[in-house]
Amino acid sequence: MPTMGLPVVLVGAKCQGKVNFCTVAWATMIDDEPPMMAVVMGKDRCTKEGIKENGTFSINLPSASSVAATDYCGLHSGNKVDKSMVFDVFFGKTLTAPMARECPINVELTLDDIIEFEGTDMVVGEVEEVYVDEECLTSGRPDMEKLQLLLYLSSGGPYFVKGRTVAEAFKAGRDFQPR
Amino acid sequence: MPTMGLPVVLVGAKCQGKVNFCTVAWATMIDDEPPMMAVVMGKDRCTKEGIKENGTFSINLPSASSVAATDYCGLHSGNKVDKSMVFDVFFGKTLTAPMARECPINVELTLDDIIEFEGTDMVVGEVEEVYVDEECLTSGRPDMEKLQLLLYLSSGGPYFVKGRTVAEAFKAGRDFQPR
Repeated sequence: MPTMGLPVVLVGAKCQGKVNFCTVAWATMIDDEPPMMAVVMGKDRCTKEGIKENGTFSINLPSASSVAATDYCGLHSGNKVDKSMVFDVFFGKTLTAPMARECPINVELTLDDIIEFEGTDMVVGEVEEVYVDEECLTSGRPDMEKLQLLLYLSSGGPYFVKGRTVAEAFKAGRDFQPR
Repeated sequence: MPTMGLPVVLVGAKCQGKVNFCTVAWATMIDDEPPMMAVVMGKDRCTKEGIKENGTFSINLPSASSVAATDYCGLHSGNKVDKSMVFDVFFGKTLTAPMARECPINVELTLDDIIEFEGTDMVVGEVEEVYVDEECLTSGRPDMEKLQLLLYLSSGGPYFVKGRTVAEAFKAGRDFQPR
Protein backbone atom coordinates (compact mmCIF):
# COMPACT_ATOMS: atom_id res chain seq x y z
CA MET A 1 0.00 0.00 0.00
CA PRO A 2 1.24 3.52 -0.67
CA THR A 3 2.48 5.85 2.05
CA MET A 4 0.03 8.72 2.28
CA GLY A 5 -1.58 11.09 4.74
CA LEU A 6 -5.13 10.19 5.70
CA PRO A 7 -7.69 11.78 8.01
CA VAL A 8 -8.32 10.08 11.35
CA VAL A 9 -11.95 9.76 12.34
CA LEU A 10 -13.83 8.20 15.22
CA VAL A 11 -16.97 6.46 14.03
CA GLY A 12 -19.61 6.57 16.75
CA ALA A 13 -22.65 4.32 17.06
CA LYS A 14 -24.90 2.80 19.66
CA CYS A 15 -24.38 -0.97 19.68
CA GLN A 16 -27.05 -2.96 21.52
CA GLY A 17 -27.75 0.13 23.57
CA LYS A 18 -24.13 0.86 24.39
CA VAL A 19 -22.14 3.80 23.01
CA ASN A 20 -19.12 2.75 20.95
CA PHE A 21 -16.38 4.54 19.02
CA CYS A 22 -14.17 2.94 16.38
CA THR A 23 -11.04 4.62 14.97
CA VAL A 24 -10.82 4.64 11.19
CA ALA A 25 -8.42 6.24 8.70
CA TRP A 26 -10.19 4.96 5.61
CA ALA A 27 -12.83 7.62 5.13
CA THR A 28 -13.91 9.85 2.28
CA MET A 29 -16.43 12.39 1.15
CA ILE A 30 -18.96 10.98 -1.35
CA ASP A 31 -20.82 14.10 -2.38
CA ASP A 32 -21.43 17.65 -1.25
CA GLU A 33 -25.00 18.14 -2.44
CA PRO A 34 -26.53 16.33 -0.64
CA PRO A 35 -23.53 16.02 1.71
CA MET A 36 -22.51 12.37 2.01
CA MET A 37 -19.53 10.63 3.56
CA ALA A 38 -18.29 7.06 3.83
CA VAL A 39 -16.08 5.05 6.17
CA VAL A 40 -14.48 1.68 5.46
CA MET A 41 -14.24 -0.90 8.22
CA GLY A 42 -13.56 -4.58 8.87
CA LYS A 43 -16.47 -6.97 8.47
CA ASP A 44 -16.59 -7.94 12.14
CA ARG A 45 -16.79 -4.44 13.59
CA CYS A 46 -19.43 -4.06 16.27
CA THR A 47 -19.80 -0.40 15.24
CA LYS A 48 -21.21 -1.54 11.90
CA GLU A 49 -23.85 -3.67 13.61
CA GLY A 50 -24.84 -0.67 15.72
CA ILE A 51 -25.13 1.49 12.64
CA LYS A 52 -27.45 -1.05 11.02
CA GLU A 53 -29.44 -1.32 14.25
CA ASN A 54 -30.19 2.40 14.53
CA GLY A 55 -29.70 3.67 10.99
CA THR A 56 -27.52 6.47 12.37
CA PHE A 57 -23.85 7.08 13.16
CA SER A 58 -21.35 9.85 13.71
CA ILE A 59 -17.97 10.78 12.29
CA ASN A 60 -15.94 12.65 14.91
CA LEU A 61 -12.70 14.43 14.05
CA PRO A 62 -10.28 14.21 16.98
CA SER A 63 -7.63 16.80 17.74
CA ALA A 64 -4.06 16.19 18.90
CA SER A 65 -5.13 16.43 22.55
CA SER A 66 -7.25 13.28 22.12
CA VAL A 67 -4.53 11.18 20.51
CA ALA A 68 -4.33 8.61 23.33
CA ALA A 69 -8.10 8.12 23.46
CA THR A 70 -8.24 7.93 19.67
CA ASP A 71 -5.50 5.32 19.48
CA TYR A 72 -7.17 3.38 22.32
CA CYS A 73 -10.41 3.19 20.30
CA GLY A 74 -8.42 1.71 17.42
CA LEU A 75 -6.57 -0.82 19.56
CA HIS A 76 -9.66 -2.34 21.19
CA SER A 77 -12.79 -3.84 19.68
CA GLY A 78 -16.15 -2.83 21.07
CA ASN A 79 -16.97 -6.54 21.10
CA LYS A 80 -14.48 -6.95 23.96
CA VAL A 81 -14.01 -3.55 25.59
CA ASP A 82 -16.61 -1.06 26.82
CA LYS A 83 -15.67 2.23 25.14
CA SER A 84 -18.76 4.12 26.33
CA MET A 85 -16.74 6.09 28.92
CA VAL A 86 -13.82 7.11 26.68
CA PHE A 87 -15.46 10.40 25.66
CA ASP A 88 -18.01 12.82 27.04
CA VAL A 89 -20.93 11.84 24.80
CA PHE A 90 -23.71 14.00 23.43
CA PHE A 91 -26.57 13.33 21.03
CA GLY A 92 -28.00 15.51 18.26
CA LYS A 93 -31.16 15.56 16.20
CA THR A 94 -31.10 11.84 15.29
CA LEU A 95 -31.07 11.02 19.04
CA THR A 96 -29.14 7.76 18.48
CA ALA A 97 -25.77 8.78 16.98
CA PRO A 98 -23.35 9.31 19.88
CA MET A 99 -20.83 12.11 19.42
CA ALA A 100 -17.65 12.88 21.35
CA ARG A 101 -17.58 16.34 22.93
CA GLU A 102 -13.75 16.24 23.05
CA CYS A 103 -13.64 16.19 19.23
CA PRO A 104 -13.87 19.73 17.84
CA ILE A 105 -15.89 18.61 14.80
CA ASN A 106 -18.73 16.09 14.90
CA VAL A 107 -20.72 14.95 11.90
CA GLU A 108 -24.09 13.33 12.47
CA LEU A 109 -25.28 11.00 9.72
CA THR A 110 -28.13 8.74 8.75
CA LEU A 111 -27.26 5.43 7.11
CA ASP A 112 -27.65 5.44 3.35
CA ASP A 113 -26.05 2.16 2.31
CA ILE A 114 -23.52 -0.49 3.27
CA ILE A 115 -21.39 -1.56 0.33
CA GLU A 116 -19.75 -4.95 0.78
CA PHE A 117 -16.24 -5.53 -0.52
CA GLU A 118 -14.33 -8.79 -0.27
CA GLY A 119 -12.67 -8.07 3.06
CA THR A 120 -14.24 -4.82 4.23
CA ASP A 121 -17.53 -2.94 4.26
CA MET A 122 -18.12 0.69 3.37
CA VAL A 123 -20.73 2.50 5.41
CA VAL A 124 -22.22 5.39 3.43
CA GLY A 125 -24.20 8.06 5.21
CA GLU A 126 -26.00 11.30 4.55
CA VAL A 127 -24.80 14.22 6.68
CA GLU A 128 -27.64 15.49 8.87
CA GLU A 129 -25.68 18.03 10.90
CA VAL A 130 -22.13 19.24 11.49
CA TYR A 131 -21.17 20.52 14.95
CA VAL A 132 -18.03 22.66 15.37
CA ASP A 133 -16.45 23.69 18.68
CA GLU A 134 -16.92 27.47 18.84
CA GLU A 135 -13.45 27.86 20.36
CA CYS A 136 -11.98 26.54 17.08
CA LEU A 137 -13.58 29.23 14.93
CA THR A 138 -11.89 32.37 13.66
CA SER A 139 -14.27 34.97 12.20
CA GLY A 140 -16.95 32.29 12.20
CA ARG A 141 -14.95 29.77 10.16
CA PRO A 142 -13.20 26.56 11.32
CA ASP A 143 -9.53 27.35 11.93
CA MET A 144 -7.15 24.45 11.30
CA GLU A 145 -4.49 25.93 13.60
CA LYS A 146 -6.99 25.86 16.46
CA LEU A 147 -8.58 22.54 15.47
CA GLN A 148 -5.26 20.61 15.46
CA LEU A 149 -7.02 17.74 13.69
CA LEU A 150 -5.21 14.42 13.68
CA LEU A 151 -4.01 12.88 10.46
CA TYR A 152 -2.43 9.46 10.04
CA LEU A 153 0.39 8.28 7.85
CA SER A 154 -0.48 4.97 6.19
CA SER A 155 0.50 2.30 6.84
CA GLY A 156 1.38 2.24 10.52
CA GLY A 157 1.51 5.88 11.55
CA PRO A 158 2.52 8.19 13.06
CA TYR A 159 -0.30 10.60 13.81
CA PHE A 160 0.46 14.15 12.76
CA VAL A 161 -1.14 17.58 12.39
CA LYS A 162 -1.24 20.14 9.58
CA GLY A 163 2.06 21.73 8.71
CA ARG A 164 3.09 24.40 6.26
CA THR A 165 0.44 25.85 3.97
CA VAL A 166 1.73 25.36 0.42
CA ALA A 167 -0.79 27.26 -1.73
CA GLU A 168 -4.43 28.15 -2.16
CA ALA A 169 -6.58 25.55 -3.91
CA PHE A 170 -8.27 26.64 -7.16
CA LYS A 171 -5.71 29.47 -7.42
CA ALA A 172 -2.26 27.85 -7.49
CA GLY A 173 -2.83 26.41 -10.97
CA ARG A 174 -4.43 29.40 -12.66
CA ASP A 175 -1.25 30.56 -14.36
CA PHE A 176 0.25 27.10 -14.87
CA GLN A 177 1.32 26.32 -18.44
CA PRO A 178 1.94 22.71 -19.50
CA ARG A 179 5.16 22.20 -21.46
CA MET B 1 -19.45 19.49 5.00
CA PRO B 2 -16.91 19.24 7.79
CA THR B 3 -13.50 20.89 7.66
CA MET B 4 -10.92 18.11 7.52
CA GLY B 5 -7.56 17.26 6.03
CA LEU B 6 -7.72 14.99 3.00
CA PRO B 7 -5.06 13.47 0.74
CA VAL B 8 -4.66 15.01 -2.70
CA VAL B 9 -4.30 12.52 -5.54
CA LEU B 10 -3.97 12.75 -9.29
CA VAL B 11 -6.01 10.06 -11.02
CA GLY B 12 -4.37 9.09 -14.30
CA ALA B 13 -6.03 7.34 -17.22
CA LYS B 14 -5.83 7.13 -20.98
CA CYS B 15 -8.99 8.64 -22.46
CA GLN B 16 -9.59 7.85 -26.14
CA GLY B 17 -5.87 7.33 -26.49
CA LYS B 18 -4.89 10.55 -24.73
CA VAL B 19 -3.21 10.71 -21.32
CA ASN B 20 -5.28 12.56 -18.73
CA PHE B 21 -4.91 13.43 -15.04
CA CYS B 22 -7.73 14.51 -12.75
CA THR B 23 -7.16 15.98 -9.27
CA VAL B 24 -9.23 14.38 -6.51
CA ALA B 25 -9.30 14.76 -2.72
CA TRP B 26 -12.04 12.21 -2.17
CA ALA B 27 -10.02 9.01 -2.03
CA THR B 28 -9.68 6.12 0.41
CA MET B 29 -8.13 2.75 1.00
CA ILE B 30 -10.62 -0.10 0.66
CA ASP B 31 -8.52 -3.05 1.82
CA ASP B 32 -4.91 -4.03 2.36
CA GLU B 33 -5.10 -7.70 1.47
CA PRO B 34 -5.59 -7.64 -1.46
CA PRO B 35 -4.64 -3.95 -1.60
CA MET B 36 -7.54 -1.91 -2.95
CA MET B 37 -8.21 1.81 -3.21
CA ALA B 38 -11.07 4.01 -4.38
CA VAL B 39 -11.53 7.52 -5.74
CA VAL B 40 -14.77 9.48 -5.95
CA MET B 41 -15.42 11.72 -8.93
CA GLY B 42 -18.14 13.63 -10.72
CA LYS B 43 -20.30 11.71 -13.16
CA ASP B 44 -19.09 13.60 -16.23
CA ARG B 45 -15.37 13.11 -15.70
CA CYS B 46 -13.53 12.05 -18.83
CA THR B 47 -11.03 10.21 -16.61
CA LYS B 48 -13.78 7.79 -15.61
CA GLU B 49 -14.57 7.01 -19.24
CA GLY B 50 -10.89 6.30 -19.84
CA ILE B 51 -10.77 3.99 -16.85
CA LYS B 52 -13.73 2.04 -18.19
CA GLU B 53 -12.15 1.96 -21.65
CA ASN B 54 -8.87 0.40 -20.51
CA GLY B 55 -9.74 -1.22 -17.20
CA THR B 56 -6.71 0.46 -15.64
CA PHE B 57 -5.83 3.71 -13.90
CA SER B 58 -3.27 5.27 -11.60
CA ILE B 59 -3.34 7.17 -8.33
CA ASN B 60 -0.39 9.56 -8.16
CA LEU B 61 0.57 11.36 -4.95
CA PRO B 62 1.93 14.82 -5.75
CA SER B 63 4.47 16.64 -3.62
CA ALA B 64 4.50 20.35 -2.75
CA SER B 65 6.72 21.10 -5.74
CA SER B 66 3.89 20.01 -8.08
CA VAL B 67 1.20 22.14 -6.46
CA ALA B 68 0.60 24.38 -9.51
CA ALA B 69 0.35 21.41 -11.90
CA THR B 70 -1.89 19.57 -9.43
CA ASP B 71 -4.23 22.52 -9.03
CA TYR B 72 -4.25 23.01 -12.81
CA CYS B 73 -5.46 19.41 -13.28
CA GLY B 74 -8.31 20.15 -10.88
CA LEU B 75 -9.29 23.42 -12.53
CA HIS B 76 -9.61 22.05 -16.07
CA SER B 77 -11.62 19.15 -17.45
CA GLY B 78 -9.95 16.69 -19.79
CA ASN B 79 -13.03 17.10 -21.99
CA LYS B 80 -11.86 20.65 -22.78
CA VAL B 81 -8.13 20.83 -22.08
CA ASP B 82 -5.31 18.52 -23.19
CA LYS B 83 -3.50 17.58 -19.98
CA SER B 84 -1.20 15.01 -21.59
CA MET B 85 1.82 17.35 -21.37
CA VAL B 86 1.40 18.44 -17.74
CA PHE B 87 3.61 15.65 -16.40
CA ASP B 88 6.46 13.48 -17.62
CA VAL B 89 4.46 10.26 -18.12
CA PHE B 90 5.59 6.67 -17.69
CA PHE B 91 3.75 3.36 -17.91
CA GLY B 92 4.11 0.24 -15.77
CA LYS B 93 3.06 -3.37 -16.05
CA THR B 94 -0.53 -2.70 -17.11
CA LEU B 95 0.84 -0.67 -20.09
CA THR B 96 -2.25 1.60 -20.16
CA ALA B 97 -2.27 3.42 -16.78
CA PRO B 98 -0.29 6.65 -17.22
CA MET B 99 1.74 7.75 -14.22
CA ALA B 100 3.37 11.10 -13.46
CA ARG B 101 7.12 10.90 -12.89
CA GLU B 102 7.03 14.20 -10.92
CA CYS B 103 4.90 12.50 -8.24
CA PRO B 104 7.10 10.63 -5.74
CA ILE B 105 4.53 7.85 -5.27
CA ASN B 106 2.55 6.24 -8.08
CA VAL B 107 -0.01 3.50 -7.62
CA GLU B 108 -0.98 1.41 -10.64
CA LEU B 109 -4.41 -0.21 -10.46
CA THR B 110 -6.78 -2.39 -12.40
CA LEU B 111 -10.46 -1.48 -12.33
CA ASP B 112 -12.50 -3.58 -9.95
CA ASP B 113 -15.85 -1.80 -9.89
CA ILE B 114 -17.60 1.52 -10.40
CA ILE B 115 -20.13 2.23 -7.68
CA GLU B 116 -22.76 4.78 -8.68
CA PHE B 117 -24.03 7.27 -6.14
CA GLU B 118 -26.66 9.92 -6.77
CA GLY B 119 -24.27 12.66 -7.84
CA THR B 120 -20.87 10.96 -8.00
CA ASP B 121 -19.23 7.69 -8.95
CA MET B 122 -16.67 5.75 -6.95
CA VAL B 123 -13.97 4.01 -8.95
CA VAL B 124 -12.61 1.01 -7.05
CA GLY B 125 -9.35 -0.57 -8.11
CA GLU B 126 -6.98 -3.33 -7.12
CA VAL B 127 -3.40 -2.15 -6.57
CA GLU B 128 -1.07 -3.86 -9.06
CA GLU B 129 2.12 -2.00 -8.20
CA VAL B 130 3.39 0.91 -6.10
CA TYR B 131 6.33 2.98 -7.36
CA VAL B 132 8.28 5.18 -4.94
CA ASP B 133 10.93 7.75 -5.88
CA GLU B 134 14.18 6.36 -4.46
CA GLU B 135 15.27 9.85 -3.44
CA CYS B 136 12.34 9.93 -1.00
CA LEU B 137 13.44 6.82 0.88
CA THR B 138 15.33 6.73 4.18
CA SER B 139 16.74 3.32 5.11
CA GLY B 140 14.56 1.84 2.37
CA ARG B 141 11.30 3.30 3.70
CA PRO B 142 9.23 6.20 2.33
CA ASP B 143 10.13 9.33 4.29
CA MET B 144 7.30 11.86 4.69
CA GLU B 145 9.74 14.74 5.25
CA LYS B 146 11.32 14.00 1.85
CA LEU B 147 8.03 13.15 0.12
CA GLN B 148 6.34 16.47 1.04
CA LEU B 149 3.00 14.99 -0.04
CA LEU B 150 0.19 17.45 -0.59
CA LEU B 151 -2.89 17.38 1.57
CA TYR B 152 -6.01 19.49 1.12
CA LEU B 153 -8.26 21.16 3.65
CA SER B 154 -11.92 20.59 2.77
CA SER B 155 -13.81 22.46 1.62
CA GLY B 156 -11.86 24.94 -0.48
CA GLY B 157 -8.26 24.51 0.58
CA PRO B 158 -5.51 25.42 1.17
CA TYR B 159 -3.04 22.70 0.21
CA PHE B 160 -0.66 21.84 3.03
CA VAL B 161 2.04 19.34 4.01
CA LYS B 162 2.64 17.21 7.10
CA GLY B 163 3.44 19.11 10.27
CA ARG B 164 4.29 18.07 13.79
CA THR B 165 4.30 14.35 14.60
CA VAL B 166 1.92 13.92 17.54
CA ALA B 167 2.40 10.27 18.53
CA GLU B 168 2.97 6.76 17.25
CA ALA B 169 -0.10 4.88 16.06
CA PHE B 170 -0.95 1.63 17.90
CA LYS B 171 1.20 2.84 20.82
CA ALA B 172 -0.24 6.15 21.99
CA GLY B 173 -3.35 4.47 23.42
CA ARG B 174 -1.75 1.48 25.13
CA ASP B 175 -1.80 3.02 28.59
CA PHE B 176 -4.99 5.02 28.14
CA GLN B 177 -7.61 4.49 30.82
CA PRO B 178 -11.22 5.55 30.20
CA ARG B 179 -12.79 7.47 33.07
